[in-house]
Amino acid sequence: MMLTVFGSVAFDTIGTPTKVLKNVLGGAATFASISASFFVKPGLIAVVGKDFPKEYHKILSNRLDLKGLVIKDGKTFRYSGVYDKTLSSRRTLRTDLNVLKDFKPIVPDSYRKSEFVYLANNDPDQNSALIKEFDNVKFSMCDTVDFWISTKRSSVIRMFKQVDAVVINDEEARLLTKEHNLIKCAKKIMSWGTKYVVIKKGEHGSLLFFEDLIFSSPAVSLENVVDPTGAGDSFAGAMMGYLTSKKKTDLASIKKSVVFGNVMGSFAVEDYGTKGLLRVKKSDIKKRMSQYEKTVSF
Amino acid sequence: MMLTVFGSVAFDTIGTPTKVLKNVLGGAATFASISASFFVKPGLIAVVGKDFPKEYHKILSNRLDLKGLVIKDGKTFRYSGVYDKTLSSRRTLRTDLNVLKDFKPIVPDSYRKSEFVYLANNDPDQNSALIKEFDNVKFSMCDTVDFWISTKRSSVIRMFKQVDAVVINDEEARLLTKEHNLIKCAKKIMSWGTKYVVIKKGEHGSLLFFEDLIFSSPAVSLENVVDPTGAGDSFAGAMMGYLTSKKKTDLASIKKSVVFGNVMGSFAVEDYGTKGLLRVKKSDIKKRMSQYEKTVSF
Repeated sequence: MMLTVFGSVAFDTIGTPTKVLKNVLGGAATFASISASFFVKPGLIAVVGKDFPKEYHKILSNRLDLKGLVIKDGKTFRYSGVYDKTLSSRRTLRTDLNVLKDFKPIVPDSYRKSEFVYLANNDPDQNSALIKEFDNVKFSMCDTVDFWISTKRSSVIRMFKQVDAVVINDEEARLLTKEHNLIKCAKKIMSWGTKYVVIKKGEHGSLLFFEDLIFSSPAVSLENVVDPTGAGDSFAGAMMGYLTSKKKTDLASIKKSVVFGNVMGSFAVEDYGTKGLLRVKKSDIKKRMSQYEKTVSF
Repeated sequence: MMLTVFGSVAFDTIGTPTKVLKNVLGGAATFASISASFFVKPGLIAVVGKDFPKEYHKILSNRLDLKGLVIKDGKTFRYSGVYDKTLSSRRTLRTDLNVLKDFKPIVPDSYRKSEFVYLANNDPDQNSALIKEFDNVKFSMCDTVDFWISTKRSSVIRMFKQVDAVVINDEEARLLTKEHNLIKCAKKIMSWGTKYVVIKKGEHGSLLFFEDLIFSSPAVSLENVVDPTGAGDSFAGAMMGYLTSKKKTDLASIKKSVVFGNVMGSFAVEDYGTKGLLRVKKSDIKKRMSQYEKTVSF
């Protein structure tokens, strides 16, 4: 296994202004690994309950190595949230951890040699413990969310020391660092020991920081966004998938991976749940990459 | 005169989180024309009162042709506003039109042949009338603000028909078009008869629209922003200054002018009032342009 993704697989119930989705396939690792699967076949470390339908299992097994997917007695993790009418903010209505509670992730032997590891927005202590079980890591990246920043801030910072890159959204970077300016946020995060920081700004694109360098990439402009769920996870998954496929970790490759992140994130938001990602063909990615290059070149 | 700028020259009283400025040189045309002056010597059509100090007059006369500047009995236009602590929104506290009230702008004979004309956020009826007094216009651009959108929406739309390009900020584009998505906003504005639309997104950069094309350019990332006043006007002024200096109006040149817009806007926000712009040297612009190219290239 060249790339391992660790994170949640969920049933999502999402209110959007145009449609309410009930118990659809979701979760950070789902979006990240499906997005990465356009570049390589990633291994997934996750847990679902016995209620996880064959249909969803097949979506994953078609694209991913599932040796790391545990099917436990009980119900799959459930998330419920609702977007405001401009789709720019989401409020969590309910979280039922179910089988995710007390889950002890195990790294399958065949994953231990993964050179690329993506730790989604899991418990930071769990991420910190898990990364140590890989003995050949060339490039690791983690995400985090406001819940962990509010409840386990020092664990989040400890986790950051142990990865090469942090991908985080703008509001969470501000909450974590207690800075408003995003350059200040990134500098603080880098001072904690991570080399690369990617700050995701949603529809405004992203900023990649490395030492004194900033790479600023606008998002793909879209006229019809219907469901932003999973955009950030798809972004991160594309980064990891691209880097793994190239077996590269130099700055130029990381910049390019961020552009692929923008592109895969843009597919994710064009349809509900995982639908936007699942219908993508490799030719769509190529086409959108070349459109993107036109959109930013002068 | 190759480039004419028509708009307000003001005394600004601005509250920022770090400093309160009292009666400093401001106004949309001031920022736009000073910004343009790094590329060409623009002519300014504006009015000030007898209270306008020699010191401010000298700042303008050093850089601009002032045949179009009227000095009237009475007080100069005064604006007062205050920023929130993140500098992302500004609340108007007070506007005293003074000499701006009932001002009838006159185009000096030597300006009538201007090929490039910038109409700042003036009364849209006044802008529409003024543009007709130029008989050799190659490229005209206008701005507008929420006050005119709220009070004279149909005049704003009529004005848009008469210019080649509209530069407008994101919130104002939404208010005007009653659309949220910025591509939809731009399409609506173009449907009213203007060819180019530039939507300014503040710290997130800008989007240029022309037919089906979108040019997306992030802002220059800055660690220390102290006063955003005049950033948008400096952006527009740089666009017009660059295009005038090149005597070009093709798409590639307009894209490049937008990048100069980002760069000049970034200087404006780094110091209070016009200070950020006034201390710029041509070599600073060149340096920041080349940094910018690095920041966005992959």
